[in-house]
Amino acid sequence: MSKNLTSRAEDYSKWYNELVVKADLAENSGVRGCMVIKPYGFAIWEKMQAQLDKMFKETGHENAYFPLFIPKSYLSKEASHVEGFAKECAVVTHYRLKNAEDGSGIVVDEDAKLEEELIVRPTSETIIWDTYRRWIQSYRDLPLLINQWANVVRWEMRTRLFLRTAEFLWQEGHTAHATKDEAMQEAEQMMHVYAEFAEEFMAVPVIKGTKTESERFAGAIETFCIEALMQDGKALQAGTSHFLGQNFAKAFDVKFANKEGKQDYVWATSWGVSTRLMGALIMTHSDDKGLVLPPKLAPIQVVIVPIYRGQEQLDVISEKVNPLVKELRSKGISVKFDSRDTHKPGFKFNEYELKGVPVRLAIGQRDIENGTFEVARRDTFEKQSVPADEVVERVISLMDEIQKNIYKKALDHRASHITEVDSYEEFKKVLEEKGGFISAHWDGTMETEDKIKEETKATIRCIPIDVKEVVGECIVTGKPSPYRVLFAKAY
Amino acid sequence: MSKNLTSRAEDYSKWYNELVVKADLAENSGVRGCMVIKPYGFAIWEKMQAQLDKMFKETGHENAYFPLFIPKSYLSKEASHVEGFAKECAVVTHYRLKNAEDGSGIVVDEDAKLEEELIVRPTSETIIWDTYRRWIQSYRDLPLLINQWANVVRWEMRTRLFLRTAEFLWQEGHTAHATKDEAMQEAEQMMHVYAEFAEEFMAVPVIKGTKTESERFAGAIETFCIEALMQDGKALQAGTSHFLGQNFAKAFDVKFANKEGKQDYVWATSWGVSTRLMGALIMTHSDDKGLVLPPKLAPIQVVIVPIYRGQEQLDVISEKVNPLVKELRSKGISVKFDSRDTHKPGFKFNEYELKGVPVRLAIGQRDIENGTFEVARRDTFEKQSVPADEVVERVISLMDEIQKNIYKKALDHRASHITEVDSYEEFKKVLEEKGGFISAHWDGTMETEDKIKEETKATIRCIPIDVKEVVGECIVTGKPSPYRVLFAKAY
Ligand SMILES: [Zn+2]
Ligand SMILES: [Zn+2]
Repeated sequence: MSKNLTSRAEDYSKWYNELVVKADLAENSGVRGCMVIKPYGFAIWEKMQAQLDKMFKETGHENAYFPLFIPKSYLSKEASHVEGFAKECAVVTHYRLKNAEDGSGIVVDEDAKLEEELIVRPTSETIIWDTYRRWIQSYRDLPLLINQWANVVRWEMRTRLFLRTAEFLWQEGHTAHATKDEAMQEAEQMMHVYAEFAEEFMAVPVIKGTKTESERFAGAIETFCIEALMQDGKALQAGTSHFLGQNFAKAFDVKFANKEGKQDYVWATSWGVSTRLMGALIMTHSDDKGLVLPPKLAPIQVVIVPIYRGQEQLDVISEKVNPLVKELRSKGISVKFDSRDTHKPGFKFNEYELKGVPVRLAIGQRDIENGTFEVARRDTFEKQSVPADEVVERVISLMDEIQKNIYKKALDHRASHITEVDSYEEFKKVLEEKGGFISAHWDGTMETEDKIKEETKATIRCIPIDVKEVVGECIVTGKPSPYRVLFAKAY
Repeated sequence: MSKNLTSRAEDYSKWYNELVVKADLAENSGVRGCMVIKPYGFAIWEKMQAQLDKMFKETGHENAYFPLFIPKSYLSKEASHVEGFAKECAVVTHYRLKNAEDGSGIVVDEDAKLEEELIVRPTSETIIWDTYRRWIQSYRDLPLLINQWANVVRWEMRTRLFLRTAEFLWQEGHTAHATKDEAMQEAEQMMHVYAEFAEEFMAVPVIKGTKTESERFAGAIETFCIEALMQDGKALQAGTSHFLGQNFAKAFDVKFANKEGKQDYVWATSWGVSTRLMGALIMTHSDDKGLVLPPKLAPIQVVIVPIYRGQEQLDVISEKVNPLVKELRSKGISVKFDSRDTHKPGFKFNEYELKGVPVRLAIGQRDIENGTFEVARRDTFEKQSVPADEVVERVISLMDEIQKNIYKKALDHRASHITEVDSYEEFKKVLEEKGGFISAHWDGTMETEDKIKEETKATIRCIPIDVKEVVGECIVTGKPSPYRVLFAKAY
C-alpha cells in the first residue's frame, strides 16, 4: 500500500479517511458501519481511557457494568428520550439459529422468537435507572456516582471511521443526587473534567458551553458540551454532560427518603465521551505527512532508527542505543528501537512520521564518531545533532515542548477562526469562505435556528459559559438578543 | 436486607447466590440472564483485568477491538465451529423501531429488516479471521499477537451470577503464526500465563492439562485448560487456550508467503478468561461470614473503623488515623477510613467481613490510651493489639501472609480431594460421598466418556500436563489405558 497521503488542501475528507487507515488506526469491517480498531489506534484509545478513568475516580466515581440489551418497553418510559433515541437501533428478535433443512447453512429458528424484543443499547439511561430504583431508598444512598465503559450501537446510515460508526466505544456516567443543585453541579463539573482532558492531554482547545433546546440530548433539561474546531473550519462536539432533572427518576419511579423522611424523586445526570475523540485528535493536529500525536497520548513517544550496513555496524550502534533505551524507559518514556533489517531507514522515517511518533532519534556512522544522535521532532520537522549524554534531557524537554506547541498551534488556529458577524449576509459569506465558529446574535427561537440550519447547514454549537451579556439584534429576524452564540458547520 | 448468609453446609448453592448479592458484587437485571456488575464487584474485576492485561503485554500481545456483530454467513464457514456455537445466540434482524399506529408505544419497523441477520458475538474467531485475511500477506506480518477485551452473548437457559450468564465480559486472544510449532507453543504459553495469574493473584491453585476431544472448543485441535476445585468438591474450568491448527485460516482463506515465497495457510490460537473467574474467586476462599479476598485483588485492602462517642473522641482518633492512612497509601496499600456516624462499629465489622476486606484496624479509647490499634485479619479472624508505630509494618507483612495462607488453604483442600480409584464402583462412591477430582484410568474412547457422564454427571476435566505414563485398565471397560485422567463434576 502506498504511504502517500492525499493532501488536506486537495481533499480534506479523503485525507482523513486515508490517514486513519494508513496510520493503522482503524478500518471498516465486513459488518456495515462497524469498524475494527487496530492495535495502534487502540493503544491511543487505551491511553485516553486510562487518563479519563483516573480523572473520573479522582472526582469520586466508580465503575460498574450494565446489560448490553434493553427491553423494548423500557425505551417508551421516558417520552422525550424515546423520541430522540429509540428509532435507529439494532433489534434482537430471536435467540437461536438452526441448520437449514435443505443443508444450505444456518437459519434463524422461528420457534425461538423473543416475547419482547431487546434493543442493543444506544445509551443506557433506561436500563440503569431501572436498576437504580433497587439501589436507592434513602438520602444515605446518595449521591450515586457511577461510570460505565461500554460499546453502544446506533444504526447510522452514513458512517465514517471514529466520527460516526454504528458501533462505538464510549464511557457513560450516570449519577443520582438528592438535590437539583448538586446534580447541576455534577453535570457542570464533568464538562470541566472533559475540557481539562481535551486541553491538557489531547492538546485540543475546546469551548465550554450549553446547548440550545433543539441540540440537547433527548431527555435532558440542560446539556453542557465541549466544542473543538478542526483544521477545515468545522466544529466537532467532543463531549457532553447532561442535567436530566427528575425525568428518568419519574419514568422509572426512583424515589428516596430525605433526612426529614419525606419521599422525593432523585435528580440525575449523564455524561459521555466516545471513540469520536480519536477523530478530534487526528483532525486537530495531523498534517500531510500523517498523524501528529501529543506526547501524553502517543503509544510510542520516541523511536530510534539505526543507520547501518551489516551486523557489525548494527552491533556498535546497539551498544550506544541499549543503555539509552533503558534510561529513557526508567524515566517513564515509551521507546521503540527499530533495528529491523527488512526495511531501509528512509522507509522507517516515513512510517513513523505517518504514525505521528513525537520524537525520532537516528544514529549512523557519523554520529558514532561524533558521539551524537540526530534528534527530530514530528511537529515542526526540526532536526538537531545532540551529544549522546544530553539526549535524555533533550527528549524529556521535547515531550513538554511538543505537547505545548501543538496545543498552541491549535489554539492560534481557533483564535483566527472565531468571527463576529452582525448580518445574515456576512454570516453566510464567512461560513462559506472561511468557516470556523461564527459569533452572532440570535433571537432565541427554534424557528430561527431551524431556518439557519436549513439554509446554511450551520448549527448553534453552544452558548459559551463565559458569554458576555451584550444586547443586540438577531441576524435573521432583527429581534432582540441578550448575547452572541456560536454557530458552525459541524461533524 | 439481612446480612446473615445461609451457611455453606446448609446449602452451598444458596450460600453462593446470596453472597454475590449481599457483598454487592452483582445482581440480576431486568433482562433475562444478563447481570449488573455492581461497583464493588467491578472493582475486583478491574484489578483482575489490569494484571492480566499486563501479563499479556509482557508476552508480546497488543489489544484491538473487533465488531460486536457477526454476519450469519460467517458462522457457517468453519464447520465444527458452527456446530458448537451458532445455536444459542442473540440474533439481530431489524435496525429500526417506530411509533405504533395505535399509540400504544413503539414497535419494530418491518420495513427495516436486515438482508442478512447479524449475530451478537458468542466468540470472535470468525469476524477476526475475516479481518486477518486483510492483514496477513507475508511471513513479515507474523506472528500477529492480538487480544480483545469485550462483552459476548450466549443464550443460556439456566443462568447464575458470574458462573453462567447470557452476557459476560471476557478477553479473547487471537494469534496467527507461520508454523504449527510456534502456534502450539503460544497456546501452551497462555495456559501457563493463566495458571500463574490464578495462583499468584487469585490465590486459586489450578491443574494444567489438555481436554479430551469431546470437551474441546468447537474448531480446536487441542485445548489447554486450567481447572480449579471449589469448596463443594466441584471443579471449575477457569481458562482455556486453543490450538486451532489451520482450520480458521482455511475457512477464511488466510494465506501468507513464507521466506521462500511459497503460499501457506496461517496457524492459529485463541484463548480466553471471563467474569466466570469472579465465581472461582468467590467460591474458593469465602466462608459463612462472607467474602474472603486475596490482598492482591482486594479493592480495599485495609479498613479502619473508629470506635467513639461524639465528635470530640472522633477528632482524637482521626488525628492518629489520618497520618497512618497517608503512610499506608504511600506504600501502595488501599485504605478506607470509615468514620460514618450513621452506623455502629459492629455493623461495620460485619459489613467488611461480608465484603472480604483482608485487614481491619479498629481504634477506640483504650487504644488511644495505650498507643495501639487492634489489627484483625479476615482469613483467620485473629486479632492482635499492635503498637501504633508498628502497624504499617504489620499490615504490609499481613498482605503477604494472607495471600499465602488462603492459597495454602485452597491447595490443602484440593490435595485432600484428589482421589485415585481403580474401579467404577469406587469411582461412583467417591464422587457421591466426597467429590473432588477423581484420578482414574480410561480407555480413551468418547463412548466410555459419554457413558460415565450420563451415569454420574462427571466429566473428564483434563489430562494433566504432568501426567505419568502408567499403564492400567479403564475403570468401565477394562481396556488398556496409558495414564490416569482427572474426572469431576463441574460448574
Ligand atoms: Zn483555516
Ligand atoms: Zn471438601
